[in-house]
Amino acid sequence: MAEADHTSGRALANGKTRIDFQTEPARYRHWKLKVDGEVATLLMDVDEKGGLFDGYELKLNSYDLGVDIELADAIDRLRFEHPQVRVVVLRSAKPRVFSAGANIRMLAGSTHAHKVNFCKFTNETRNGIEDFSENSGVSTICAINGTAAGGGYELALASDYIVLVDDGTAAVSLPELPLLAVLLGTGGLTRVSDKRKVRRDHADVFCTTEEGVKGKRAVEWRLVDEVVPGSKFDEAIAARARELAAKSKRDAAAQGIKLVPLTRTFTADGVEYSSLSVEFDRAARLATITLRGPASAPPASADGMTALGAEFWPLKLARELDDAILNIRLNELEVAAIVFKSSGDPAQVLAYDKFLDAQKDHWLARQIRNLWKRVLKRVDLTSRSLVTLIEPGSCFAGTLAELVFASDRSYMLIGNRQGDNKPPAAIVLGDCNFGPYPMSNGLTRLACRFLANPSDVDRAKTEIGKALDAEAAQELGLITFALDDIDWDDEVRVFLEERASFSPDGLTGMEANLRFAGPETMESKIFARLTAWQNWIFQRPNAIGEEGALKRYGTGQKPVFDTKRV
Amino acid sequence: MAEADHTSGRALANGKTRIDFQTEPARYRHWKLKVDGEVATLLMDVDEKGGLFDGYELKLNSYDLGVDIELADAIDRLRFEHPQVRVVVLRSAKPRVFSAGANIRMLAGSTHAHKVNFCKFTNETRNGIEDFSENSGVSTICAINGTAAGGGYELALASDYIVLVDDGTAAVSLPELPLLAVLLGTGGLTRVSDKRKVRRDHADVFCTTEEGVKGKRAVEWRLVDEVVPGSKFDEAIAARARELAAKSKRDAAAQGIKLVPLTRTFTADGVEYSSLSVEFDRAARLATITLRGPASAPPASADGMTALGAEFWPLKLARELDDAILNIRLNELEVAAIVFKSSGDPAQVLAYDKFLDAQKDHWLARQIRNLWKRVLKRVDLTSRSLVTLIEPGSCFAGTLAELVFASDRSYMLIGNRQGDNKPPAAIVLGDCNFGPYPMSNGLTRLACRFLANPSDVDRAKTEIGKALDAEAAQELGLITFALDDIDWDDEVRVFLEERASFSPDGLTGMEANLRFAGPETMESKIFARLTAWQNWIFQRPNAIGEEGALKRYGTGQKPVFDTKRV
Repeated sequence: MAEADHTSGRALANGKTRIDFQTEPARYRHWKLKVDGEVATLLMDVDEKGGLFDGYELKLNSYDLGVDIELADAIDRLRFEHPQVRVVVLRSAKPRVFSAGANIRMLAGSTHAHKVNFCKFTNETRNGIEDFSENSGVSTICAINGTAAGGGYELALASDYIVLVDDGTAAVSLPELPLLAVLLGTGGLTRVSDKRKVRRDHADVFCTTEEGVKGKRAVEWRLVDEVVPGSKFDEAIAARARELAAKSKRDAAAQGIKLVPLTRTFTADGVEYSSLSVEFDRAARLATITLRGPASAPPASADGMTALGAEFWPLKLARELDDAILNIRLNELEVAAIVFKSSGDPAQVLAYDKFLDAQKDHWLARQIRNLWKRVLKRVDLTSRSLVTLIEPGSCFAGTLAELVFASDRSYMLIGNRQGDNKPPAAIVLGDCNFGPYPMSNGLTRLACRFLANPSDVDRAKTEIGKALDAEAAQELGLITFALDDIDWDDEVRVFLEERASFSPDGLTGMEANLRFAGPETMESKIFARLTAWQNWIFQRPNAIGEEGALKRYGTGQKPVFDTKRV
Repeated sequence: MAEADHTSGRALANGKTRIDFQTEPARYRHWKLKVDGEVATLLMDVDEKGGLFDGYELKLNSYDLGVDIELADAIDRLRFEHPQVRVVVLRSAKPRVFSAGANIRMLAGSTHAHKVNFCKFTNETRNGIEDFSENSGVSTICAINGTAAGGGYELALASDYIVLVDDGTAAVSLPELPLLAVLLGTGGLTRVSDKRKVRRDHADVFCTTEEGVKGKRAVEWRLVDEVVPGSKFDEAIAARARELAAKSKRDAAAQGIKLVPLTRTFTADGVEYSSLSVEFDRAARLATITLRGPASAPPASADGMTALGAEFWPLKLARELDDAILNIRLNELEVAAIVFKSSGDPAQVLAYDKFLDAQKDHWLARQIRNLWKRVLKRVDLTSRSLVTLIEPGSCFAGTLAELVFASDRSYMLIGNRQGDNKPPAAIVLGDCNFGPYPMSNGLTRLACRFLANPSDVDRAKTEIGKALDAEAAQELGLITFALDDIDWDDEVRVFLEERASFSPDGLTGMEANLRFAGPETMESKIFARLTAWQNWIFQRPNAIGEEGALKRYGTGQKPVFDTKRV
């Protein structure tokens, strides 16, 4: 059960039994989102007593997953509710402290699984901030008014422009290695080397200097973009915000929509959303996510889409799928495999895709496409075996077909089911399978799938819009196995049982390698090179042992290390 | 001490106290190297009783580090002693078995450090086989006459062309995950996805199917290039060898040189080679490697180089440096940092570089450059902090200057030492700092260093051949710190003490990230993504715990897993 997984580390605060990713600005305890025309300010003001778990205090703007859930929500609000915003300023409400980074006591008392999942989510949030800048034209400025240590500086690294106050003490630092014997959890090393392109020996000095780097050297070493005396700090931030806002092409007249709370019901064995259902078979260690196609045709115009707002089917489904995946990741650790199913009319799914294609210059359509891109990346990075079952009555078309290609395997039923008059299952490709949803390695899922023969991508393109039955999908290489009704139940059952019998860790490592063939990007490097090393270190006695640095931090006792270099 | 590090896992066989990387064909116990004109055959015939450690038998051509040391040596012999060879055929001398891969009992009883170092060396050997093909025009054929499981198939994956016998039982397989709950240790997942470009769902099925894939499906899934009935197997191999040999541009008249045994003396606190010294300060956890420049000018001609053979200074030094690094990696696990120093005349070092540049069409000069490339990559991938100290009397010029750029940090002395009349230290750049020694990410060390400003590379290029003193080197960004005599001893000492005080694991993870900014290649993906995940899994109780799969393999007891997915 979910509770057991958390409490093996520590108990959730306030008697909660589940980590909830849904929140809204009125309920924030740690952030204040202020929108003033084209400039939004995200003010970090962490409530010390507001930890997600019992047992630690979030001092000095240190954070836990709960703080990051609010940050992720705030960015989503900016995306959908404030489309006129052109610049986001990240700053702290605490004097002389920007952020002390991830809370050390939280880390020290967490299970390995929670540490890994915490880092993954915070990475996704920071990648999302960069994506917001790159693809929505919203620049981010980080105004560092004091200490930005560890994850505090890593948050700054995710922004476009970093201003550090020059007051003789304010500094940026990555003290994880000297203090805690762990790596940074949120992309810091990769962003230092690959985004800020800090020279490797400077980076080496920086990452091993507990007190960090300040003033002119921080600029010379490319760690920040500008240092400004305290007396001119606010003025400088305002000036940079104006300059960056002037460069943005965002529509000042765009009217946001309201991200209303999701409709969800948790039961003992599942979660019921308006457009999808999650069903847990805990004995078999399975979660089946059934996505439902749209109940009606898309609206006639962009105004119709805006009027529907968060009820617009592609937006509603994306939000629900995101929440469902996060719920499984954090609250259902025993789930070995996620099985994707769907029900509905493929033609209607495709009609919505075409609608979004036609409206691609509309801010809301773009945000929805971008949200799907990020949700699909979240699926790719989920450490569970992913399987799609394509059966009669399903609607794996266009955007939903991406789940087939995101899966480790797919099974498709040939023909009808005995005693069932639903038409045979079909996959229908759309334009959106060939561009707008790249994986973190920069390739579309089909391009990555067909790395050996790029011509197979072109061949698939010629089939856009056609209902591809199991044999056709097999022939095109779109699915793993086509099975008839006689074999289906046994084959699928044996496969899922086998999957649940394998080592969870081995599967995680295998899937993390096989899912991402081909090139690497900064984003994929963060999730591969850095995350994998961090996960390793999070298992090493030098960090987590009774005498390790993470356990001994703050006790006054020095850590004792096994000094062998590996 | 070295012995303690090994015996915490198990004892070296035959009472040895040190793993030795030096061998020669006459002493091989596991391989037979036969050269027949343009075709060489490497016959794998592992001696069951010839394990490097006590406590396991190398059945079914399974291997341990000792077997791989011979393989690496054999490839080196082919490079230098048999330059007329155009095709290498890898095959097994055992009936119906190609290789069962890395020996499981060896792995199960090894320390974490040994497992990691074993995998690193075998990876370097396989990358070396691919480099031999790519840069020396020697094609490799793997003739699989039966079972090629795990590391056995991974060895095949490193070759250019894989032929599998089609006899109804012979198969290729990667059973690590289902059998042992670990990943493949030697690049298998990456080569399946990125070299053979196997479709990800096929790869998923393949890597979870204990018995592997055989016959036609093995070809269809791109796992092998050809399947051939047993009756035609030898004939097919011979035909492919002839075809590939005909495509090679190697000089049939080239005469090899003899790779004579290295001159080495091990003492309690060091190793003395002819061109370098290794000095251990075990209390400080340091190894200082002092490289000595050439004693005389380069020969007048290529014939002179060939006549010198293994005594030719650049070749001798590269072999000695390689051996020194491997000795530290495997036998001196407590060493936290490697300090590079040098002594000699920079102009002479550069004269040898110019000689090699001038002879770049000569097979031996090319092999020597390639060896340096691989040795420098071995340095990059060594999990110890790397520091270069550039002092009066040093000769960090051209090829040797690469060690400065391979280091995590470098310190250079400004001016003279008090009471010492040696001229001030100088770095001298050569053409070879701008091309022939790429890192595993495909960039030169200077291009990687100056990722932020590629123009800094061009600026450095204009300084080729000039003696750059500490201030000039600092200004060009070539070194980390320029220090004068007053500060030198304290600064260097404090830094080295600090380094030794940090968590060894944290340093390994940090250095693995900061050393490789920029793009990724298949090679860098193997050492980053795959190796890091494998190291993680090698720490997880599901693999190495008392109830884990690696510990329980062969006991008849099933492993018990913590079923949480992380």
